[in-house]
Amino acid sequence: MTFSVAAPHAKGKFATDKIFGANAAAVKAVAQVGKEKVTNATIGAILDDNEKLVCLPTVEKVFRDLPTNEIIAYAPIAGLPEYLDSVLDAAFGNSRPEAYIKAVATSGGSGVLHHVIWNYSAIGDTVLTSDWYWGPYKVLCEDALRKLDTYTLFDEQQNFNITAFEAKVRSLLSKQDNLVIIINTPAHNPTGYSLKDSEWDSVLAVLKECSKNGKNIVLVVDVAYLDYAGERNECRAFFSKFSNLPANILTVVAYSMSKGFTMYGQRTGAMIGVSSNEDVIQEFADINQYTSRATWSNINRACMRVLATIYNNQQLLAQVEKERNDFYTMIKERADIFTQEAKQANLAMLPYVAGFFLTIPAANPDAVCNQLHNDYIFAVPLAKGVRIAVCAVPAVKIKGMAGKVAKAIQENK
Amino acid sequence: MTFSVAAPHAKGKFATDKIFGANAAAVKAVAQVGKEKVTNATIGAILDDNEKLVCLPTVEKVFRDLPTNEIIAYAPIAGLPEYLDSVLDAAFGNSRPEAYIKAVATSGGSGVLHHVIWNYSAIGDTVLTSDWYWGPYKVLCEDALRKLDTYTLFDEQQNFNITAFEAKVRSLLSKQDNLVIIINTPAHNPTGYSLKDSEWDSVLAVLKECSKNGKNIVLVVDVAYLDYAGERNECRAFFSKFSNLPANILTVVAYSMSKGFTMYGQRTGAMIGVSSNEDVIQEFADINQYTSRATWSNINRACMRVLATIYNNQQLLAQVEKERNDFYTMIKERADIFTQEAKQANLAMLPYVAGFFLTIPAANPDAVCNQLHNDYIFAVPLAKGVRIAVCAVPAVKIKGMAGKVAKAIQENK
Repeated sequence: MTFSVAAPHAKGKFATDKIFGANAAAVKAVAQVGKEKVTNATIGAILDDNEKLVCLPTVEKVFRDLPTNEIIAYAPIAGLPEYLDSVLDAAFGNSRPEAYIKAVATSGGSGVLHHVIWNYSAIGDTVLTSDWYWGPYKVLCEDALRKLDTYTLFDEQQNFNITAFEAKVRSLLSKQDNLVIIINTPAHNPTGYSLKDSEWDSVLAVLKECSKNGKNIVLVVDVAYLDYAGERNECRAFFSKFSNLPANILTVVAYSMSKGFTMYGQRTGAMIGVSSNEDVIQEFADINQYTSRATWSNINRACMRVLATIYNNQQLLAQVEKERNDFYTMIKERADIFTQEAKQANLAMLPYVAGFFLTIPAANPDAVCNQLHNDYIFAVPLAKGVRIAVCAVPAVKIKGMAGKVAKAIQENK
Repeated sequence: MTFSVAAPHAKGKFATDKIFGANAAAVKAVAQVGKEKVTNATIGAILDDNEKLVCLPTVEKVFRDLPTNEIIAYAPIAGLPEYLDSVLDAAFGNSRPEAYIKAVATSGGSGVLHHVIWNYSAIGDTVLTSDWYWGPYKVLCEDALRKLDTYTLFDEQQNFNITAFEAKVRSLLSKQDNLVIIINTPAHNPTGYSLKDSEWDSVLAVLKECSKNGKNIVLVVDVAYLDYAGERNECRAFFSKFSNLPANILTVVAYSMSKGFTMYGQRTGAMIGVSSNEDVIQEFADINQYTSRATWSNINRACMRVLATIYNNQQLLAQVEKERNDFYTMIKERADIFTQEAKQANLAMLPYVAGFFLTIPAANPDAVCNQLHNDYIFAVPLAKGVRIAVCAVPAVKIKGMAGKVAKAIQENK
């Protein structure tokens, strides 16, 4: 028994990071056998075909041209006003919901989840997401003394499992007054799935029906990979469905500049509240600004100014969209190669649509990943599968990978 | 009654910011009568004698020379290792305590307080600070469902009121198992006071005595203004007193780059745990890293790299210290003018030693501040006094100010 001075609820917390461990193994292998022979499919950031971390050139230019004041001055607690305006365009594009809408700046998408969990669930409540989920969702809930429960994401036809979703929503709403639901779409991490428009209709129909008892539903849409999800307007069309929802359903869009602006380390995002009720949105702005003051005080001014500058200059915006689209295409080509080879090798994949990652279901993910190390392939073992970061692996190294994964799965059943 | 969907504990939160309000009034006056006539003593950042926001030139150069990767890549959750090393030198200088020590990166000094309150007090506990305190301490406690209590900072001789301090420590420890105490020194906001070495001895003697019952004391030393507190080594000498404290006293230094590196808007700080017990420091690293993952994920890599770069280059460090010292001298001259004129005007000030702010006790602070608006002087009304930001007001505008404050105090008793 070690000596502890933490408060009782905080004792024993410890984060193990499988992604970090897998990446460390890859880095070690590079040191041993050289970069050429190693495939590092663990990194959640875009690397180009020379395996160099990508920064969108126009974003970098705008960042480097910022005047000193914009780098060093405090921002208002809620965020720079010009950023809070522009971020609505960046998120919604042509599909802004008809609703009351306000944004509050956050530390990336993680910061959005922190605030929503803290302000819209009670201590002890259960938050809901799908069984394939980004691991930190659980840490975010548990550190805040909430629980995380999951529904089965896919049905047998690999479509969104609306039956499983509805059952969990009903069950949790029978036990608690507020239900926070996190849906990561489009281009879901780790599977690359995007809810179809018809699936969104079903989800919202369930929520409307379930909200009739007067309890509160807070639907968080984590759109971290929105800018690599497909055609700009098409993949944003679902946002307009958040118009005219009942007042006790609040939609919160978790927006992040990390991927869309390749500004991962700058820690800048926004929570965007959408409601048919003006009170709900004023409360959203008030209580989340209050929690910001009580958490990180204010958000990185420089990175907010970058987004506002780009969105107030059509030429810059067009350049950023062009640059980003080129990398979207690069990632798509990599995923296409893997998908085709997987078919040939009879390797079952989860239904990838777009995004940084694709996932292979596996009974023994750790054993599969370990065996892949023999071929100097490094991927991330999840609870029920293996995650491959197509954002980070050049096409030339993707070739042949699916066959090796199929073999490792076959031999580790 | 407005419609609400927040969790019960989160309803009704709303931050009013007197500092923002006072600054807004000053900005409005500048628009009306011109910059020359207006004295804006509300801003908590260094402005030079032309009222331009100061950035230390070497810090800016290092920041602007960063390679792209250092701007955009994610940092490890706990912080860049080189930053976590260098920040100990930056904080402690020659006076590093003999103790187990670990650092975790945070969003400025506010982020330190967030983590300490969350991990080292229980929900419902009371946190202790002095009656003159930075307003957000209360927001930090209340958002986390803790309370804030205060002791009287000064005795009748304007020294640290050790009797009042001890009484509150004993009283709170009789009611709860963990006590978080926040002491903002040296160069306290809002008074400019610095605990003398002998006062630190008394504080630590009280804490050692009170810790004998086995309860846990977490002493947070908020050193936000450390780099403008006087001679570098002298004003750090108190850190060595944190050596060899009992295992159930944890010291946490709240370090911030905001003022010392004039990087306010970059949101980079560190919590530094100091304990005689290795378990306590391992727990400190583990649980706070976990809370970081669950709050902001990771911290601005670029700004961490700036500090690490400067501290690994003696020439850069010498330049930064020279530049910073010039601004320290500038602020000191401004405070000296005010102090001398206050004496001549029989204006009672709280005991200013160093730092960004000085404070005049007042029975009716709002009325005093409003009357000063007639002279286009804008200061921040506190609960029991008026705060004047000498960091932001040129010497030429400081001249004559004390007399006007004295008059306003006299006429608003």
